[in-house]
Order: sequence, then C-alpha cells, then structure tokens
Amino acid sequence: MKLWGGRFNQPIGKDAWELNKSITFDQRMAPQDVRGSMAWAQALRSAGVLTPQEWEQITGGLQAIQKEFEDAVFSFIESDEDIHTAVERRLGELIGPLAGKLHTGRSRNDQVATDFRLWLLEHLPILDSALASLQSALVERAEAHPDVILPGYTHLQRAQPILLSHWWLSHFWPLQRDRERLLELQNRTAVLPLGCGALAGTPFAIDRTALAEDLGFLSPAPNSLDAVSDRDFAVEFLFCVALIGVHLSKLAEAVILYSSAEFGFFELSDAYTTGSSLMPQKKNPDVFELVRGKSGTLLGNLIGLLATLKALPSTYDKDLQEDKLPVFNGFDTLMAILPVLANALETLTIHPDTMKKCIDASMMATDLADYLVAKGVPFREAHALVGQAVQAAVQHQTGLDQLSQSEYQSIHKAFENDVYTVFDPVESIARRSALGGTAPEAVKEQIQAAHCAMQVLQ
Amino acid sequence: MKLWGGRFNQPIGKDAWELNKSITFDQRMAPQDVRGSMAWAQALRSAGVLTPQEWEQITGGLQAIQKEFEDAVFSFIESDEDIHTAVERRLGELIGPLAGKLHTGRSRNDQVATDFRLWLLEHLPILDSALASLQSALVERAEAHPDVILPGYTHLQRAQPILLSHWWLSHFWPLQRDRERLLELQNRTAVLPLGCGALAGTPFAIDRTALAEDLGFLSPAPNSLDAVSDRDFAVEFLFCVALIGVHLSKLAEAVILYSSAEFGFFELSDAYTTGSSLMPQKKNPDVFELVRGKSGTLLGNLIGLLATLKALPSTYDKDLQEDKLPVFNGFDTLMAILPVLANALETLTIHPDTMKKCIDASMMATDLADYLVAKGVPFREAHALVGQAVQAAVQHQTGLDQLSQSEYQSIHKAFENDVYTVFDPVESIARRSALGGTAPEAVKEQIQAAHCAMQVLQ
Amino acid sequence: MKLWGGRFNQPIGKDAWELNKSITFDQRMAPQDVRGSMAWAQALRSAGVLTPQEWEQITGGLQAIQKEFEDAVFSFIESDEDIHTAVERRLGELIGPLAGKLHTGRSRNDQVATDFRLWLLEHLPILDSALASLQSALVERAEAHPDVILPGYTHLQRAQPILLSHWWLSHFWPLQRDRERLLELQNRTAVLPLGCGALAGTPFAIDRTALAEDLGFLSPAPNSLDAVSDRDFAVEFLFCVALIGVHLSKLAEAVILYSSAEFGFFELSDAYTTGSSLMPQKKNPDVFELVRGKSGTLLGNLIGLLATLKALPSTYDKDLQEDKLPVFNGFDTLMAILPVLANALETLTIHPDTMKKCIDASMMATDLADYLVAKGVPFREAHALVGQAVQAAVQHQTGLDQLSQSEYQSIHKAFENDVYTVFDPVESIARRSALGGTAPEAVKEQIQAAHCAMQVLQ
Amino acid sequence: MKLWGGRFNQPIGKDAWELNKSITFDQRMAPQDVRGSMAWAQALRSAGVLTPQEWEQITGGLQAIQKEFEDAVFSFIESDEDIHTAVERRLGELIGPLAGKLHTGRSRNDQVATDFRLWLLEHLPILDSALASLQSALVERAEAHPDVILPGYTHLQRAQPILLSHWWLSHFWPLQRDRERLLELQNRTAVLPLGCGALAGTPFAIDRTALAEDLGFLSPAPNSLDAVSDRDFAVEFLFCVALIGVHLSKLAEAVILYSSAEFGFFELSDAYTTGSSLMPQKKNPDVFELVRGKSGTLLGNLIGLLATLKALPSTYDKDLQEDKLPVFNGFDTLMAILPVLANALETLTIHPDTMKKCIDASMMATDLADYLVAKGVPFREAHALVGQAVQAAVQHQTGLDQLSQSEYQSIHKAFENDVYTVFDPVESIARRSALGGTAPEAVKEQIQAAHCAMQVLQ
Repeated sequence: MKLWGGRFNQPIGKDAWELNKSITFDQRMAPQDVRGSMAWAQALRSAGVLTPQEWEQITGGLQAIQKEFEDAVFSFIESDEDIHTAVERRLGELIGPLAGKLHTGRSRNDQVATDFRLWLLEHLPILDSALASLQSALVERAEAHPDVILPGYTHLQRAQPILLSHWWLSHFWPLQRDRERLLELQNRTAVLPLGCGALAGTPFAIDRTALAEDLGFLSPAPNSLDAVSDRDFAVEFLFCVALIGVHLSKLAEAVILYSSAEFGFFELSDAYTTGSSLMPQKKNPDVFELVRGKSGTLLGNLIGLLATLKALPSTYDKDLQEDKLPVFNGFDTLMAILPVLANALETLTIHPDTMKKCIDASMMATDLADYLVAKGVPFREAHALVGQAVQAAVQHQTGLDQLSQSEYQSIHKAFENDVYTVFDPVESIARRSALGGTAPEAVKEQIQAAHCAMQVLQ
Repeated sequence: MKLWGGRFNQPIGKDAWELNKSITFDQRMAPQDVRGSMAWAQALRSAGVLTPQEWEQITGGLQAIQKEFEDAVFSFIESDEDIHTAVERRLGELIGPLAGKLHTGRSRNDQVATDFRLWLLEHLPILDSALASLQSALVERAEAHPDVILPGYTHLQRAQPILLSHWWLSHFWPLQRDRERLLELQNRTAVLPLGCGALAGTPFAIDRTALAEDLGFLSPAPNSLDAVSDRDFAVEFLFCVALIGVHLSKLAEAVILYSSAEFGFFELSDAYTTGSSLMPQKKNPDVFELVRGKSGTLLGNLIGLLATLKALPSTYDKDLQEDKLPVFNGFDTLMAILPVLANALETLTIHPDTMKKCIDASMMATDLADYLVAKGVPFREAHALVGQAVQAAVQHQTGLDQLSQSEYQSIHKAFENDVYTVFDPVESIARRSALGGTAPEAVKEQIQAAHCAMQVLQ
Repeated sequence: MKLWGGRFNQPIGKDAWELNKSITFDQRMAPQDVRGSMAWAQALRSAGVLTPQEWEQITGGLQAIQKEFEDAVFSFIESDEDIHTAVERRLGELIGPLAGKLHTGRSRNDQVATDFRLWLLEHLPILDSALASLQSALVERAEAHPDVILPGYTHLQRAQPILLSHWWLSHFWPLQRDRERLLELQNRTAVLPLGCGALAGTPFAIDRTALAEDLGFLSPAPNSLDAVSDRDFAVEFLFCVALIGVHLSKLAEAVILYSSAEFGFFELSDAYTTGSSLMPQKKNPDVFELVRGKSGTLLGNLIGLLATLKALPSTYDKDLQEDKLPVFNGFDTLMAILPVLANALETLTIHPDTMKKCIDASMMATDLADYLVAKGVPFREAHALVGQAVQAAVQHQTGLDQLSQSEYQSIHKAFENDVYTVFDPVESIARRSALGGTAPEAVKEQIQAAHCAMQVLQ
Repeated sequence: MKLWGGRFNQPIGKDAWELNKSITFDQRMAPQDVRGSMAWAQALRSAGVLTPQEWEQITGGLQAIQKEFEDAVFSFIESDEDIHTAVERRLGELIGPLAGKLHTGRSRNDQVATDFRLWLLEHLPILDSALASLQSALVERAEAHPDVILPGYTHLQRAQPILLSHWWLSHFWPLQRDRERLLELQNRTAVLPLGCGALAGTPFAIDRTALAEDLGFLSPAPNSLDAVSDRDFAVEFLFCVALIGVHLSKLAEAVILYSSAEFGFFELSDAYTTGSSLMPQKKNPDVFELVRGKSGTLLGNLIGLLATLKALPSTYDKDLQEDKLPVFNGFDTLMAILPVLANALETLTIHPDTMKKCIDASMMATDLADYLVAKGVPFREAHALVGQAVQAAVQHQTGLDQLSQSEYQSIHKAFENDVYTVFDPVESIARRSALGGTAPEAVKEQIQAAHCAMQVLQ
C-alpha cells in the first residue's frame, strides 16, 4: 500500500523508490507515530469526524499496533514507504477500511513534524540525565581530593598552581550551559504542527490547543506554512550536540595529555584503555580519542543540516527528509560517549606527587609581582622587575626561589628578605579567594553552587 | 610599549608580531575596554588597592581616553599589540606611572573575555531591533492586502490556495524564534569573567558580584579556568546568526522565484534591483541573491569557530583570538542585510491577478476528497477516487472542475451535482479556519498574535 | 580473541568496548583485509620470515576465509573488535597457532590504512562509471533535440535565448572536472602504508616496492609516521564527493524549477515522481529534492572529517577511526543518486512550446545594442539607448519589437527600419558561434568535445 | 557612472548600493582586470570590432591605468560599483567615448570570472613557493641532527624510539601532497571564461583559443553557461587551503606539546614566543597556537563557499560574489603563517638529552616480541608473552630491562640471556631499515627522495 498513487499511470522506479523511502530510519519514531495518531483520532472525534464507535475501533487498533512495536513483533513489508504508511497499512489489516478515516484532515507533512518533535521531547530528558551523570562524576572527583595541587596552564605552558578540584569543576560548568540550552530548546520543540495539514491548515473543526495539551505540547504552531517546514528545533538540537561535543573534546584532550608519560598526572583504568596489536606495552586512551574524534563528526552533522535547509522555498520540500539521521546520530553518539566518560573518570587514578613536582617557583612569578605591588610598586613596573628576576634565574639555571637576596636587591630595593615566602604554592592558591578563584574556600563554595545549579535544572 | 617582555632576550620577529597582534580588529572594542577598565579601577579602589586619589586620576585618564575614541582622535602606534595595550599605553602618557597600577590583579585573559561579552551585550539589542523591523515589515505586508490569494506550494508544485497574508506571516515566526534565542543568549553572555585573572582567580579582595552589577552583568563567572576560555557565547551567537541567515535565505529564495517572469507574482522596486552591464533589459534581484549567498558565508563563520575551539586544552590558548572576526562579520552582515530586506519588501509591488491565474481546480483536489469524506467515504478511499478524477482530467486535458457529472458518477456515486461547489478557492481557504490555518479569520487572529509576540520581547 | 591484552589486569568495560569496536562498519573492508594479508604473507615469505610451507598454509587459510566472505557465510563473534581481529581469529581456527605468524612486523595501524586505500581504489572506478553514465545521459539529451530553444536566465531573470542542448551540456562539464579530480585522487590513494608498522617501520626485510606492486599501488609511502596517520585521500575523496553533490544540487534545483507549473518546461515521468498522502493531484519531484537535500549532508561529511583531523599530533590516534563512515556514506549516497538522476533525465518529457512562449523580445536587447554597435555606436552608449527603448516599451506595456520606427528614431537615428530583424531568437542564437557559445554549430562542436573528453578519462 | 541603468526610473537605494557594491574587495584584482581588458581589446581588434587606431588608443589608456594602479595613484570614486566599472570609468576620462567600445561582446559575468582566475593563477606560485620554503626548513632540520633519538608516540603514549629527523620529515610529505594538489588546480584554473558573454557566448568573431593563449590560459571554457558560473577552482583552492591548514595545525600541535615543560623537547626562540601581561615568567608559543586556531577559520571559509554554491540554478547569480573574500583570506592567512612557521622552526632549539631520557625499555617491547619471533615463536604468542613481562615489570615497579633472567625464563624458555640486547634504542631504530622506516640509512634515502620530490614540482 502506498498512501498516494491514484493519479499515476506508472509505478515508481525501483531505484527511485529505494532513494525515496525513509522506513529504514523513521521506523525509530514508531511509538511517536502511534501516539500522535491516537491523539489525532481523539481530535477527529471531538470535531465530529469520527463517531465514538469509530474512534474506539481506531484507538483499539492503534493500541494493538503500539503493543506490537513494544513486543518487537511488528512486521514491516516492502511497500511500507515510511512509518506513517506502515502504521496506517497495519491499522487497515486490523480494523478494515475504517482505518482510512484516520488520515482525514491530516498530511504526512504535519504528521512527520509532530512525530519528530515528540521523539525529541521524549529523548531530551534522557540526554539531559546523561549529562547530569557526567556532571556528578566531575563534582565527585572535585570533592574527592580537595587538597591536591595541579599546575595550571595557559598556552600549555605552566602558569600558576591551582587546585585539582578547581580544574575538575572547570569542566562542570560548560555542561551546565549545555543543559540550559537543551532546556530552552525543549520549549521551542513543544510547539505542535499537527492540524496544519499539508501546508494550509485543516478544514475540520480541530481544537488544536486541546490537541497540543493532549500530546504534552505547550502550544499549537501559529502558522501552518511555517509549521510543516520548520526544522529549527532539529538544527538547534544539532548545535547543542556539537557544542557538547566540543566541550567533551576539550576534556578528552586534557585527559589524554595528563595521561601521557610526560605529564603523568592521570592513569586510566585498564577497563578504559586499549592495547596495541603490535606493541605489547601499550595502554592507550582510545575512548578519549574517540570522544575527541567524534566531536568532529558532530560538527559535520550540524553543518550538513544547516546547508540542507539553506534557501529552501517555504513549506514542505522533500529535502527535509535529511533531518532525521543526523539527529538520531547526534543523540546516539552522545549516549554512547557520556556514560563511558563518567565511568572512565570515576575509575581514573591521580598522581598528586607528579603534579606537585611540576610546580616550580616561576609559577609564583605573579605572586612575586603582587608582592612588589603590596610594597607600592605599580603592577606594570613590578611585572617588568620580575621579568628581570626570571631572566636572571634562567641565566643562572636556577629557580626564582634560589636567587640570592642580594640579586633581588640589585633588581629592586623593595625585594626584602621576606620575598621567599611568596613561593609557597599552597599560599599562592589560598590568596586567590575571590569568587570563582582557586582558593580552597572559594572552591568549596563553588562545589555548593554546582550542586545547586544541578538541582535547579531537575 | 608591550605589556610583557621583561624576561625576553630578543625582540619578537616582525613576522611573528604581525601574525600575533590583534589591534587591527580588536580596536573595535575600545569603548568596552575603557568601560571595563573603569569598573576595574572602582573594584580595585573598593579592595583597597587604589587610594581614592589614585582612583580619581586613573578614572579621569580613562574618561579622557573614552572621549578620544568618541571623537575619533585616539592615535594608535605601531607597538600597540592590542586594544588593552593601546589603552594602558595611552593612560601612561596621560597620567604617568600610576597607570601601571590599573592592571593589578587582572590579566588580558579575563579582560578580553569581558570586553568581548560587553561588546556583544551592547550589540544584541541592535540586532534584535533590526530583526523586529523586518518583522514589522512582514506584518505590514500581511495587513496590507488581506484578501489576496496566492497559490500555495509544496515541493514547488501547486498544492492548495492560501492567503498571501498567511504566506508573509510564515516568514515572521522564524524571526520570532531567532529573537527568542538571542534573548536567551543575552543571559548567558551576561556572566562576568573579570576578576578571574589569567586563569586562577585574583588575589586581591575584589567583590566580583558588585563588579558584575557595575558592568550590567547578571553574575560573576563561577570558575576562573572556565571563565577565561569560555567562548560558548560567541559560538552560540554565530549559530543564531547562521540560523537567521538560513531563514532569510528562504525568504530570499521565494522572493527571487516569485519575481521571475514565469511566476510573476512580485515586482521589485527599481531602488532594490540592479541592471546588467551587457543586457539592457535586465532588472535583477541582486540584493536577495546576496542575502541568499551570504547565508552560506555565515554558516562558514559558525563552523570555523567551532572547529577552532574543538580539542583545546582548558584555560586560555591563543587560538581563541580567532573568535572576534567571525562575530563582528556576522553582526555586520546581518545589519547590512536586514534593513535592505525590510525596505525591499516594503517597496515591492504584488500582482494579485497573476497569482489568481495560477489557482487551478486541481488545487482543490483535497477539498474534493473532503467532500467525499463528508458523505461518509473514508478519507483514504476518497483520496484514491479523487486520484482517478485527476487522471481523467489529465487525459481529457481539462480541469477537475470541467469533468462532467456523469464522469464523476462513474468514479463514485457519492459525487453528486453539488460537487462543483468545492472548486471555489475562496471557500477552500475559508474552510481552513482552525488555529494556524489560512482562513481569513484565522489569519486575522494570527496577526494579533504576531503583534503580541513582538511586544513580549520588547 | 583480542589482538592485545597481555599486560592488562582487568577486562575492558562493556561500554568502552561498544564505543571502541569498529567491526560494525569496517567489516565492509573484509575482502581488502584478506587481500592485504595475502600480500603481506608473500612479503614475509620473501623476507624469509615464513617458510614456503608456512606461507602455503597461511595463504590457503586466507583463501578459505575469502571464500567465506564471498559466500556470505563468515560468522563474526562478539569478541571480533575489528575486521583485522576477525580475520586473524578465523585464520587461527582454520590453521592453528601458525596463524599467529601473520601479524609479524605489521600493525593494525598500517594494516587499516592499507585496507582503506585498497577499498577506495576499488570503488573509485565504480563511482567514475556512474558519473560517466550520467554524463552520457546528459549528452544524449543534448543530442536528442538540437533545435529546441530555451530561455536562458541569469539571476533567474530572462536574459538571452539559448539552445536547450547547450543547457544540458552546461551540466556535463562540471562532472568532467569531478572525474578529473577523482582520477588524480586515485594516484594519491595508491601510495602504500603497509610495511610501516605501528609508526616506525618494520624490522623485517620487507621489499615494500614489490609489495606495493603486488597490491596494485604505485609506490610505497615514503615516511612511516606519515603513512599510518595520513587520511588526506579520505578527506580529498569527501571533498570530491561534496563538490559532486553541489553540482548535482544545481542540476536538481533547475529541474525542480523547470518542472513547476509556472515554468512548465519539463515534465517528469510518473516513475520518477511521488504523490501526496493528502493532496490527490500532486506529482512531486522528490528524487530531485533528495539529491539537493543530500548535497547538504555530503558537505557535513567533509567538514566532519576535516574537523576530526585538525590538530591531531602526528602518527596514529584513535580519532582516525572516524574516517570510514563518512567515506562509505559519501560513496553510497552518490551511488544511490547518480543512476536515479540518469534515469529520471532520460524519461523526462520536454515542452518546447512552453519554452518558446517565454522568449520575449526584450531577451534580444543585447542584440539590439550590438545592432547599434555595428552602426558605429560605442557599446556603452548603445547599452544606454536600448535601456531607453526598454523603458519606453515598459511604459507602453508592449514589447521591444512593437515599438514604432518613429519611437526608435526618437531615441537614436541609427535605429533604422531593419531594426526589427534583431528580434528573431533563432538568429540571436546563431550569432553566438564563437567557441563555447550557444550557436548550433558551436554546440555541435561542443558535443564532439564532450565525447572526446569522456573517452580521455576511460 | 554605472554600467547599467538606462531602463531604470529610480536610482538604487543607498542601502542596496552599499550591500551590492564589491569595489571594497574586488579592487584587489585591478591588475588582472586591466590585463584582461587589454587582451580583450586585442581580440576585438582581431575580430574587426576595433580599428587599429581605436585599439591603440584603448590600449594606451589601459596602460596608463595600469601605471596608476602600480603607482597607487588611481582614485576610486563613490559610483565605482566594482573594479570593472572603475576601470571603464577611468578609461572614459582618459580617452573619451571610445572607451565605451571596450565592453562590446563582453559581460561582467565572463570578465569577473576571468579576473578571478587570473588572480589565482598569479598567486598559486607564490603560495607554492612559501610551502616549498617551509618544506626546506623541515628538510634542513632533518639534516641538521641525524643521530638524535626521539620517543615516537601513538595515541600520545610512548610507542617506539625514532629518529628526530624522521619526525621532521613526517611533516614534509603532507606539504608535498598539498603542492601536488595546487599544481593540478592550476590546470583546472587555466580555463578561460572570457568570450562567453553574460551566459550565451559572444556574437563577435572572437578567437577564444588565441585569447586564452594571450592570457596564459591552457584553453577556453567549452560551455558559456558553465563558464560564467563555474567556481570550482575557487572552492578547490579553499579545500587545498583548508587541508594545508589541517597539516600545519598538526605540526603546530606537536610543537606546542614538545615545547611544554613536561615534554621539554623543544625550546622556541624568544623571537617566536610571546609573554603574558600578568605572569612575568611566561614564554608562550602564540604563533603555533594561532596557526592551529586559524586552521579552524580556514575550514569555515571552505564550507561557507560550498554552502553558497549549493543549489544555485545554472549560469550567473549574484550569490557568486561571495567567492572572493574567502579566497583572498585563505591566501593571506597562509602567507602570514608559512614564513613565520619556517622561521620559528629554524630558530627552535632541541634538547636531545630530554628526548633520550624519555626512551624507556618498554618502548622496545615490540623488539622483544620480534626476538621471540626470531626464535620461532609465532608473533601473536610472542606478543602475549611480552605482555606478561610488561605486567611483571609494572608490578615490580621496574623496567623491562631490569627483569631478571629467571623471571624471563619463567615466562618462556625462549628468553635466553641475550635478551637484554634488544633494549638498545639505537639498535631498535637501526633495525627498521625497510623503505620509509626510521633507520638512519632509510632516513638518508628519504631525505634524498624529499629533495627530488621538491625539484619535480619546480
């Protein structure tokens, strides 16, 4: 059965059929298609298009189909062009010609847009929950070793000492922004296309506001032409996914670096590493590399759909069929990645001693400048003076904390004999206690804020 | 003057300097840089780092610089690596070594992120206003000719008659979603990095909450490492811009089509068309083609920054300097496009007669099926029967409304002699009166809703 | 069996395993993997690593496996991480521990790069052939109706009359460039990674030049580090595919336009159109819309892999595993599209009368200016004068060919009474006889050139 | 002066003019525009359209304009819409109305396409030369310290020892492929659009083959419709640029890593590093980070133009005006980056001792397996046995070379007392002497091959 064809003299070419059909991937929306049809049947009944008896029969048939999908016993046949055709075909098998009344006043254009939004609305919370789990893993790591000191980098050069907890949390907040974006997307997704027909609206007395409510949407779409062609929600989802991918790629990059022999800060569990077919000694961070690599692919998904949508004339064009695979792929990719990341982080071993060894005195150079500031030297001058001290230390192949008092004095009189106190990284960290800083008390507050932030979204 | 260099033995290579400096484009943020510095001076004073007298002098100097920028008399010099250096250098010229105290506890890392967010916060309302103007132009057009009928298309094939007003409004709602996204972005942008130092926070007693308030931000960034590297706001802006571009490209595509001789629905004003250097008769819709073309470029801006951010290790890396040009370009492109579009639409002439001539009886085929539905035929069967009628009409090279009563009877008995009433497009349109449909009353309500929607965002 | 794990204390996590394994998609390279292994066994024998007897046994086992793949009876098992593992595992089942000698001096890093290049080398000619078939279809169409006149457009505004044949050929040449690019890519793909080990080369006396020849490659890769990480061939393939997609999208866009009721130049066969579930009259160009839409997706594939490769440190990283799916998808998409396009074009009906009706006199405005040029008026002045004539015609709501002789005279004396001869589109076309122009003789030569061009590549 | 407008009643809107004009960026093609016009004048003379005297005057005027551009004294005026208009306007000022004959039979459509191709043809060799310089720098570095040993990584985990020279060369070959691609692009770019008019060809007796030769093109474009709209050369250039960007980003990533304190292999010269405004000790690899960051932007340029071209109907559309900025930007970016990279590499200091310290015995694990292979153990079994040895070493917190003979014996009898010889990295490297491997002799041959390869392209 095709849902069209009355006016055609010739069957569709086999090659065109293969290109055209979407059942291979849109069958994933089977539960949503049935759910949408149930609500539509109800709306048709309220509109007087279906009698209560007809409605009951149709609904009964749809429930049976729902069950077939749940039990994975639904059989697709070759002529099922898409999920809508498959469901209507099966309904006909179950309840006879009455099935033909279900599509009254409806088009596949508003139907597929509704199915797709329903699918996304059901899957956004699942994704959100996986993100929250990764956030929890990060907060747990931040809470686990509150005193561990990590060299902080900018430009991948040692910069200032920080708390490892602070670093874990720096990967928490981007995910919070991601979850906020997904939440806002949820509202924009919950706008109902159903009842817009092919493009012009429906001529039957459908109460679209009640229909929206019935399906858990916030409101009906305000313009039928826009409703059948609007894929903003899909492309916005792909953007959110791509940006999540970027965030995860940054975490992955850092973990890969810190797990190298040269950094040596982290050691991944055997359960989250992989070996080499040639080199027996290897323990590779494959999962993190895959996370990083897949973030490229997720960018591709986004740009692919944006380019597809560009310059389409308004209302439905078949190009829109390209919307589903990238969305499904984006969701599946993140759902494969996120739990692995959470588990890999939870089972990761840290090496505080190695981290500590990387804290050299030059990382307190800013503290040294601030020391001069406290003695009244303008910061810019202090910065230049410390630069001289650094240069001296490099020349002597020694540390900033090993320059003699007289060397310091020769640079500037304000360097007194208490100057060596600034080189304690613990003190350096403790000084950065303003909100958002790396001082233990500030990080403690930040952890509180993280807990609050997570709860707000739940 | 460079803001660094104390420890260096050798000057930077001229080629490296040219590659490295950002003054050519970041001088655009001069007002924001000065504004940020003023607030920082105030925060340093509150923290006891600056005396009231020092604060007064610094603030006075900054005000003078602000004025120089306003009067376009500020002189940049070769050694101004970036806008921060230029301002601090000039401050030194104006108030002497005291200028060197301004950078206390601050880094260019938190400074530039703050400048950039300030810039965006000041420019988002400008962009929003330009979008609202285009929306107004669309609503005006929708209100101007409430009775004009346009052929509605799907797949660029004639589908059903619709109101032209309805079509104009179908380009209104995507812009509404765009504006919602920008509004939400505003909140995410208004998170203050200042006071995060280079990466680890500031060791001075800065009240970052007060500082945020002073600069019109909603809150201080909660994690200093994230704060200096977070460019989500920039990439989210580029996404919003890219999607606006896609929406405008769809409008442009339709206007280009409808202005072709073959469609003939629209005629662009001479003021918004362009001629040919070779063909004297040409009147080309160049501005709409540029809108469509630039939507491709805007996609490139988005993907460029996303790819740049991918897999950066946390905190500041110089790669982030690539963030500004695409954001500036995205803003400038839309600000060049949007007013032209609004003006071009306002001065466009419509040809209702040509539109009307394109409404043929086959566009009421769905109404014909619905006619059978009203007589109790299940829609799916009705659809097939009308398909037969269409085929008959094609074979007779006539219209659906020209098939004889007996021909209709031979297809199905339910086709009675009132069948010809369904072919009136005005009636067809009027029937689609459910919310969001193309019926005049529904469109009237939609226009009301559009007015409300616009006000909500203002 | 895993090809690694000796040093691991703990099995890999189930979630990590699922993320990590590539067997779901790299099994597509099974024939190439076996072929590569046979060549490797031969090379090991020549290097004295395998005895003739061992070589014979291994080769026999591999041949059996090859057969199993051909007969589709090869059974994968859960622990088959990738195709290399599956083949080596099966070889062990067939010939015992001797199978363990095959991987001597080889790594999965050089192996997978070899398999992938082999795969592409085998599939490039298939794609080329499909492109050539579409080219043939275009040339056939160009040859079929040599006299049909089509309005030529720029900016989608009527510009000058052209031959329909010329238009068909304008879609031939981009495909020729595509095929040239694929041919050049073939050479760059035929550079052999095998014998590069994991990264550093192989310690056994492998004659890589002979090995390359044996596998049909042009030369061995000159640097082992580069060889295992070079995916230029894959990304260059994706670029070629994306650009082919762009070319096809332009053809699709034109066919969709020309098949609209408003243009009415083309009519698609029933076999290459699709109907509507709601609107019984619809005949939609879905296949062309899918071609256009998929060109967006193909862009995404390209950018996805480019972004994945960006900033990877040299030699093998697991990110590279993301290379295969976009390449397979790019190939499959084009192989699904190209034959459908060729068939759809071959079965398309043209409407020469409708095309002719669209040729109005203003399309000969350039000829009118050239008429003045022939009388000695500089072209720029002639262009302006014809502009005045156009304006006069618009004001009188008439055609350029309907302006009276006196009206022409009032514009410029050089307009004599032979002026009306320029408005014959057949003559206009015939005048453009320089190479590459639309005149019948030029198009005839162009068709010859097209035939030659196609042969050169075969 | 505008080159059009005769038929227009109303001037173009100021906003539309601003959006439309391209003079701000296409003036960069001034020399090419004049050169193209000179050749066109010559072709018009040969076709009998210009008399020798007219040709002489026009050519003289164009030479004067050429000189004005060379001397940078050419004055643009507000009404110069684009470079073609500016040149024709100026020609009119210099030689009077005769200037109006130059545009005979030509359109801006074929003119701009010709200018752009000329521009690219002149700039491809410049880019090629910059790439060759970077290649030379890499080869020089490879030749400078032939004996230095570097740890080789896969997955950023230590894998096998390699020669530093080999590593430098691994960044040479990708550039060689890039240059090959640019060379092939050159041929595809040298196809001449001039003489194709606006779309349909030229009606004058232009010898396009002679014209092509005159301008240094290989051949005239075979189809006028394709010729005016074909931007494949631009997008292929952007692809080459993007892939060069990716290659450079990989080099940059490695240099950034190796210049970190943790790796410590490289030290950048002061002339190619940058300091911090806050942290006096910092020496940052900004130029390499910018190279990495800009590779993202270059991806954006590519995708932007591809998306712009997608689904344009054939022949010229104004969207094509978006082609120039990304091409200019791509060229400029690489020309800014490449010399800096070459200089930065040439001035970089290497730390062989630090590299050596990172070579631990486990990196010879594959050699240890190969040792067993030499004793007849199948490689797969040998791999597992060495895995046990690695595990034993990890448990004892010692090196593979520190395990006692008895421990080895307990793993497998084939481990005899000569086992310790395999742990010499110099020997390990020397063993990998097959073509493309890291052995000194193989690298020496590779350097020869590199020199040859560079010469072939010159």
